[in-house]
Amino acid sequence: MDQRLHFITLATADLEAARSFYRDGLSWEPLLDVPKEIIFFQVGPGLVLGLYDANAFTADLLLPGTAQPCGFTLSHNVDSPTLVDETVTSLLRAGGNLIKKPQFAAFGGYHGHVADPNGIIWEIAHNPAWSIDETGAVLLGE
Amino acid sequence: MDQRLHFITLATADLEAARSFYRDGLSWEPLLDVPKEIIFFQVGPGLVLGLYDANAFTADLLLPGTAQPCGFTLSHNVDSPTLVDETVTSLLRAGGNLIKKPQFAAFGGYHGHVADPNGIIWEIAHNPAWSIDETGAVLLGE
Repeated sequence: MDQRLHFITLATADLEAARSFYRDGLSWEPLLDVPKEIIFFQVGPGLVLGLYDANAFTADLLLPGTAQPCGFTLSHNVDSPTLVDETVTSLLRAGGNLIKKPQFAAFGGYHGHVADPNGIIWEIAHNPAWSIDETGAVLLGE
Repeated sequence: MDQRLHFITLATADLEAARSFYRDGLSWEPLLDVPKEIIFFQVGPGLVLGLYDANAFTADLLLPGTAQPCGFTLSHNVDSPTLVDETVTSLLRAGGNLIKKPQFAAFGGYHGHVADPNGIIWEIAHNPAWSIDETGAVLLGE
């Protein structure tokens, strides 16, 4: 199996709230929007984030019940601590909930965390040791 | 906030098992490996998957306890149903657990699901309506 991720699909209890947050609040453009079922956003080269009705999510896995997102964070990196503060503010204004106030981080950068209306946690980070070159290769110092 | 995901970080109860599965079982190459703390793999252009000790994960979020991954799937797309079968077999051989046997899927393709040793669910999918062009743009038909 190649070292490659194409989709991340998240169980979403309130798909309307997700649409409001990402599309209306953050001005993200859906790749495909199937009402009451799933919304896809492209979030990188060849990378799709899917917000999937929580009941449909478990049904598709042939599992019972509904699923809650937990045990993961999604990170969006920015170029400075000031941009971390500004991005966190814009997420809160769009209806997000503060999890961790922007602060200096153990990895040597600066970050803050905001949950979307379905509890999906975004880390907004400035990491001076991280970069992406023109081929898409990630450089990550210790 | 730009429509862009840079890291997905997953709470991992057994980091040794994760290392065995991805590095030894699937021959993935770590971008950075900090024993007992975190392993990073590049899984796309500018995209990093982090497997983070579950206690360190919650401590970093200033939350109590340990976290369990749930409510999400990661998808790896391949070019044919046969490759779905073969990839699922290779994941099981590397120590994964079968969640959903490969079968035809509601979206019009063919897929199967395998959990890694920490319960992180990978979907292996063939989706004839999906493609990525040379700029990284994703095409997704209905």
